[in-house]
Amino acid sequence: MATQQTRCLLRLGMVGGGRGAFIGAVHRQCARMDGRYALVAGALSADPKRARQSAADLGLAADRAYADYEAMAAAEAARPDGIEVVSIVTPNDSHHAIARAFLDRGIHVICDKPMTTTLADALDLVAVVKRGGLIFGLTHVYTGYPMVRQARDMVAAGELGPVRVIQVEYAQDWLATELEAGGNKQADWRTDPARAGAGGAIGDIGSHAYNLAGFISGLEVTELAADLTAFVPGRRLDDNGHLLLCYEGGARGMLWASQVAPGNRNALRVRVYGEKASLEWGQEAPDRLSFAALGEWPQMLHRGAPGLGAAAAHASRLPPGHPEGYIEAFANIYRDLAEQIEAKRDGRPPDPLTLSVPTVEDGARSVNFIRAAVDSSRQDGKWVKTTLALD
Amino acid sequence: MATQQTRCLLRLGMVGGGRGAFIGAVHRQCARMDGRYALVAGALSADPKRARQSAADLGLAADRAYADYEAMAAAEAARPDGIEVVSIVTPNDSHHAIARAFLDRGIHVICDKPMTTTLADALDLVAVVKRGGLIFGLTHVYTGYPMVRQARDMVAAGELGPVRVIQVEYAQDWLATELEAGGNKQADWRTDPARAGAGGAIGDIGSHAYNLAGFISGLEVTELAADLTAFVPGRRLDDNGHLLLCYEGGARGMLWASQVAPGNRNALRVRVYGEKASLEWGQEAPDRLSFAALGEWPQMLHRGAPGLGAAAAHASRLPPGHPEGYIEAFANIYRDLAEQIEAKRDGRPPDPLTLSVPTVEDGARSVNFIRAAVDSSRQDGKWVKTTLALD
Amino acid sequence: MATQQTRCLLRLGMVGGGRGAFIGAVHRQCARMDGRYALVAGALSADPKRARQSAADLGLAADRAYADYEAMAAAEAARPDGIEVVSIVTPNDSHHAIARAFLDRGIHVICDKPMTTTLADALDLVAVVKRGGLIFGLTHVYTGYPMVRQARDMVAAGELGPVRVIQVEYAQDWLATELEAGGNKQADWRTDPARAGAGGAIGDIGSHAYNLAGFISGLEVTELAADLTAFVPGRRLDDNGHLLLCYEGGARGMLWASQVAPGNRNALRVRVYGEKASLEWGQEAPDRLSFAALGEWPQMLHRGAPGLGAAAAHASRLPPGHPEGYIEAFANIYRDLAEQIEAKRDGRPPDPLTLSVPTVEDGARSVNFIRAAVDSSRQDGKWVKTTLALD
Amino acid sequence: MATQQTRCLLRLGMVGGGRGAFIGAVHRQCARMDGRYALVAGALSADPKRARQSAADLGLAADRAYADYEAMAAAEAARPDGIEVVSIVTPNDSHHAIARAFLDRGIHVICDKPMTTTLADALDLVAVVKRGGLIFGLTHVYTGYPMVRQARDMVAAGELGPVRVIQVEYAQDWLATELEAGGNKQADWRTDPARAGAGGAIGDIGSHAYNLAGFISGLEVTELAADLTAFVPGRRLDDNGHLLLCYEGGARGMLWASQVAPGNRNALRVRVYGEKASLEWGQEAPDRLSFAALGEWPQMLHRGAPGLGAAAAHASRLPPGHPEGYIEAFANIYRDLAEQIEAKRDGRPPDPLTLSVPTVEDGARSVNFIRAAVDSSRQDGKWVKTTLALD
Repeated sequence: MATQQTRCLLRLGMVGGGRGAFIGAVHRQCARMDGRYALVAGALSADPKRARQSAADLGLAADRAYADYEAMAAAEAARPDGIEVVSIVTPNDSHHAIARAFLDRGIHVICDKPMTTTLADALDLVAVVKRGGLIFGLTHVYTGYPMVRQARDMVAAGELGPVRVIQVEYAQDWLATELEAGGNKQADWRTDPARAGAGGAIGDIGSHAYNLAGFISGLEVTELAADLTAFVPGRRLDDNGHLLLCYEGGARGMLWASQVAPGNRNALRVRVYGEKASLEWGQEAPDRLSFAALGEWPQMLHRGAPGLGAAAAHASRLPPGHPEGYIEAFANIYRDLAEQIEAKRDGRPPDPLTLSVPTVEDGARSVNFIRAAVDSSRQDGKWVKTTLALD
Repeated sequence: MATQQTRCLLRLGMVGGGRGAFIGAVHRQCARMDGRYALVAGALSADPKRARQSAADLGLAADRAYADYEAMAAAEAARPDGIEVVSIVTPNDSHHAIARAFLDRGIHVICDKPMTTTLADALDLVAVVKRGGLIFGLTHVYTGYPMVRQARDMVAAGELGPVRVIQVEYAQDWLATELEAGGNKQADWRTDPARAGAGGAIGDIGSHAYNLAGFISGLEVTELAADLTAFVPGRRLDDNGHLLLCYEGGARGMLWASQVAPGNRNALRVRVYGEKASLEWGQEAPDRLSFAALGEWPQMLHRGAPGLGAAAAHASRLPPGHPEGYIEAFANIYRDLAEQIEAKRDGRPPDPLTLSVPTVEDGARSVNFIRAAVDSSRQDGKWVKTTLALD
Repeated sequence: MATQQTRCLLRLGMVGGGRGAFIGAVHRQCARMDGRYALVAGALSADPKRARQSAADLGLAADRAYADYEAMAAAEAARPDGIEVVSIVTPNDSHHAIARAFLDRGIHVICDKPMTTTLADALDLVAVVKRGGLIFGLTHVYTGYPMVRQARDMVAAGELGPVRVIQVEYAQDWLATELEAGGNKQADWRTDPARAGAGGAIGDIGSHAYNLAGFISGLEVTELAADLTAFVPGRRLDDNGHLLLCYEGGARGMLWASQVAPGNRNALRVRVYGEKASLEWGQEAPDRLSFAALGEWPQMLHRGAPGLGAAAAHASRLPPGHPEGYIEAFANIYRDLAEQIEAKRDGRPPDPLTLSVPTVEDGARSVNFIRAAVDSSRQDGKWVKTTLALD
Repeated sequence: MATQQTRCLLRLGMVGGGRGAFIGAVHRQCARMDGRYALVAGALSADPKRARQSAADLGLAADRAYADYEAMAAAEAARPDGIEVVSIVTPNDSHHAIARAFLDRGIHVICDKPMTTTLADALDLVAVVKRGGLIFGLTHVYTGYPMVRQARDMVAAGELGPVRVIQVEYAQDWLATELEAGGNKQADWRTDPARAGAGGAIGDIGSHAYNLAGFISGLEVTELAADLTAFVPGRRLDDNGHLLLCYEGGARGMLWASQVAPGNRNALRVRVYGEKASLEWGQEAPDRLSFAALGEWPQMLHRGAPGLGAAAAHASRLPPGHPEGYIEAFANIYRDLAEQIEAKRDGRPPDPLTLSVPTVEDGARSVNFIRAAVDSSRQDGKWVKTTLALD
């Protein structure tokens, strides 16, 4: 939400994410939530006209709407009020060059995953970041869940004992048919070795599974054996991968990544088994974490449960005892009301889809309901009328 | 996220929600997400000093940080750039007076629930809003969930047939002991008839359950019979309520609201049974909606499932096929990086809790993992080393 | 399973349950499982011819296949080897007279529920049983589940503290349409006040819910308020019931019984909330019992979990650590093999539905699979062929 | 349950399963359920005294209680009323010799799994069974579940399209510590290569997982790669196995078998993904089967759901619409009543654990409950007293 504090907000730039792109909008929405960034510059599209329009959509100053990332990096680095951090939300194959352009000029980077398409490029970024003492954040989003952070803390604290077995999987079904043949843009580049790199499903979502298992267990994979398959005829990259893993210290693991598993949309799930206990977390019910110790009854931890650690608390946006719901639902209320109010200001009918926000009449009905409940209870449960003429 | 577009953002004020308050921060976070509001004025606390400090925290101009809501309403209404809408996030008993102050001056209102503590006050607001042609939004947050809106659409479209039975419940456990005796601020005012009104659990969360059942079913309660109980010794308001409901058209319902049910934190659940089919939704897995038609296999709808309607789509912030996660997790990544970057800028150590964001080294490990998987698979599943010296 | 031990088996008779009846067969199957009863007499049908045929099906001696229960009670009581116990599996309205006939002659009774259609008849049976010092077992089957017995023990042991709230429900959907109009025999008598008594759903399944809540909580209902509805046009008895309950000691409860709730087949569920903790059990996952104590992580108990009590252990037929499955699945294997072997003996083709039992070839495949797994692992995970020519 | 029909029951013998053994009792219980077998002979223990006592427990005639299986096979084959089928419930390493003894004499066999400890022995049994035209049933119990049979039917009917991916796992935790060191008999022989064969977890439960995946998919594994590990120090056989599988036709699979996974008791789960749809079944909720087709809402099939096939119906013991519960719970009622009645006959106090069966008083309470519910509802929901003096 805009405030006058612009001077103390982090000055943020973005490469990619213009009109028609998807993930850039998500990045912006999330950057806005906590009010700590100000988007002030962008090279939002490779198409100069679209880049300009996109910048206008977002209210960027005309002189900070760049046609390409090189120009942007140079100009911003030269300004006293230049960006401090840049978000890179382009296809995989361009990440390295863009990141270098900004890192070389001392600008911090937030980058979509996978980081690069080759190991050499990846190691190059590692070296550059290290040399420059810069911040480089990779959006393996799942590491942001409170219960994922809690899981990591519990493993680190030894609550599972030494880890023996890790089962991790990420299953989707959106590529079960040859979607890329029909011109689906997302499918198109993700199944193209030139833009996605050598890995298909294994790169796109297997990397998430790999990262999550390592994040929670604190262990690195030392060896792996893989069976990657392209099930859809004509597909050039794997759409299903089965892996056996060895972790440092002797733990063993399995990893399954699939984009051809009907019934799964984003079924990321990880299970960690130690000598003493186990943990299970799944993306489809992210507020829960199962914990089972040998000889004890299995337990279900959840966001806000008693005894959770500092990491989970830090990542929780709502205190446990509070009755209000999730942020998105709440933000939907605000957004729908914004539309209604703007429509009234502009003298136009509002988008009918925004009209489901509870109204003053709903408020009166609720108050009447409470009154009737109290009345009935005071009269030993007598039936009490609740009709209310509001029109 | 701040942009130069301040002129076209909705000018928002807030009453309540200063330092130490909780729900105001949630309102602001949600207002920020979509970048359509600018918070420009506030009477953030009844304590003038705290009001000033809170306003400074939020970057409000000094002349728009008011000591009380009356002054704020008068001054803002007089300014050409005065607020267009105000959020009221104070205890229940003050809602009516504050809302009147702004509505009377033609300013739209977003108000916490329950709207008022008496029916007379509620009806008064209904009349004022109607007369003024104003927008009044009540934050029954649950109506913002995509699958709740989908449920409503399905009932309205006749997919269940005429509704016969509605089961709704909202169970919590945070008031199972006499928390108010220990100085818990939330417990204190919610169990105090002077500030909460005549209803305890029935007002605080029963009203949510009531509203949700009506929202989805489209039916009004015409009669009710209630059994409200205060189980905790010394408590002055009900902490558990059992109700029988008659709905217009002959449907019957039960409603349970409890704040003394161990194991429940925010277990809001609604089930609607029609002549032909039924629906079930629960707040603890809000992306799911169960649907069961007579003579058919039960189905599990979810956010982004094929065939969902426009209302659900409108309320969904992420397309179904996209692998990235929930907004909050993503925003946690952004927030933690903001802290890291600011710390670096300020030359201080960052909050250690923010250091779990995946780094450039993690990016390199993922890229190396993908490489190894492809290598192994190309060699018929041979074990391939994945160790990577990064330090 | 028949053995030579017939002398020490309990001599059992049955009234009702002849050809075409359903529940009688279930009673017999369950009586057989533990090998402690011998069925030696029956008045299996009101139709003398069907009674004779049914008795022949079951191998009863001709002189112990009775045309009516009165004759049976008289004759069996007179024999030195007469029945010791009788199972009554007839419609509700006949239970009382039949039970009296046997109880009056000192014969123990196992009776379907509800016990009678009037309270006077019920109290009469209570008095007769008491006077005679007889055993009278009522088949509220759910009390036989291990985790239901465990739940009862935990409440009795004070693990929940004094009980405050009980939520119990039993929902079905099989009477959502006017099934009785189409000649469905089960629907016909259950919706007929003459045969079912004054309660429809409330009698048929509400009585199960009531009994279960009392069984687990150990509390009696002292007062109730009810809203019974017949939703299906033309139906003479309630098909949906909503009740508020007061239990001794001050606990409050809700009870929902419905036979018109689409998507529910036998959704019996009970939740008990005490001052300190709560329990939840549902018939659809009967091996689980949720337990949640204030300030602790919720726990999931299950059949065979560590620390369960003697009652649960007594009711468990399989020790926790054993890998084999449920009794019915196992019995299906035996039954299908019986059919195969009998068919071979009789020189006829077996019922094809019985042919899915794993064979010697399946055994060889499994052994080969184990061999291959060990081989591959010994060769560092090399792919090993597993094809086996068995034909 | 014993009847006079002994002549038409299948004459069954048993090898193993004497006093102190576990699985033999389960076999007998399951054989009894459908009343089609009569146990008439046994070599129940290698210890002659225990064999005699065990035979007496079961009421076997003295001349058919054998000291060893060889004697039993010879004698029974010679009798005109000799056994037709034998159950072999001994440790794995003895299965082959025992099975041969009976098969060679034309006696059918029911055998525990895994069938043998070597492939040569397995192939030998295949040949013998084939040559003799005999029935050989292997107790992979899970194939007896209705929904497992339904799953197989659906795959065979092409409802999933060609199968692409199979995920199967069987996880337990009972061997997470060195149980065999403490003298646990089950652990002892299962971790001993001499008695269990070359496979530990992979043989004991991996073979179940393997068989189940093949049973449902109808596909054979053509190649595998395995990583078997013994995590518990000192253990001689694997306690955790990770496998990659190739199935005929190109499908790929993963199999996980573990006995060191805390929190799992018998977590057998299989998922089959075809081109068009997927299925999931788990042993912990065996009455459910998830089905998800591309572009449609996921469905939850269950025992008795509309539209299930003949195989599932054949394996179901209770019709869907019937309110009574599972067989075991019902049989517990019968068994507990048997104990009560026998105790009364014997003039001794009954086992207190059997006293929880609902009594005539419970019957009266239920009838009173129904009466009160009807009364209250007829009086517009007035509270009605339900107390009943029964003592």
